[in-house]
Amino acid sequence: MALVGMEWIIDAAECDEGALRDRDRLRSLLDRIVKDLDLHPAAPAQWRSFPGPGGVTGLLLLTESHLAVHTFPEYRLATFNLYCCRERPEWPWADELVRNLGAGHVNVRRITRGCAEADVALPEQGAARRER
Amino acid sequence: MALVGMEWIIDAAECDEGALRDRDRLRSLLDRIVKDLDLHPAAPAQWRSFPGPGGVTGLLLLTESHLAVHTFPEYRLATFNLYCCRERPEWPWADELVRNLGAGHVNVRRITRGCAEADVALPEQGAARRER
Repeated sequence: MALVGMEWIIDAAECDEGALRDRDRLRSLLDRIVKDLDLHPAAPAQWRSFPGPGGVTGLLLLTESHLAVHTFPEYRLATFNLYCCRERPEWPWADELVRNLGAGHVNVRRITRGCAEADVALPEQGAARRER
Repeated sequence: MALVGMEWIIDAAECDEGALRDRDRLRSLLDRIVKDLDLHPAAPAQWRSFPGPGGVTGLLLLTESHLAVHTFPEYRLATFNLYCCRERPEWPWADELVRNLGAGHVNVRRITRGCAEADVALPEQGAARRER
């Protein structure tokens, strides 16, 4: 099976609740990821703010695949997926999510897509894991 | 850290190239997943067909999080992500992708999101690592 890409799966906990409801802040964060990693949006991002205790979802279709964020202020959690069908450098997820969302804990997993070998790379095997 | 959801990560190999370029077929497939699992789209799906040897991308924003498909006809591969922030039953990915896309091999991984403990639940412990 051919390798077709890499996916970063990021869960950030103990975030600032206000930041997780702040669509502009999340939009800026996604914009910066796109710029820093030289990604190419193929459609306008879709954003939804959910009512009550709910958070925000942002989905961005990329020529490289997709970038998604979902926030859960009620649990002080934000989750991201970045799926790229071409090689991209690492992005400093932990540092950036601590700085931008006040995250107290960031877990970054990286998995290969379309490849049956060594499918799951756990944090212990090299991806970032950060405790504040 | 609270558990906020479950994500299914599916890679289907040895698919029919024509099926992977057939946006209507892929749209029907996503529609059926939504119906079978009682998911709730929160915006119209975004679809892009890529030129040349390229495939199709579909992104669907759900109140439950998101559903994504990317196809790579040049590698006869299709990949899916289904991220749900509420419990959903299993969907018969392997059977359906064999039937709908002619897949010869389907790899389904399931991971928890927002949970630092037991982050990765593989379908069978270690099954995602296969020897070729």
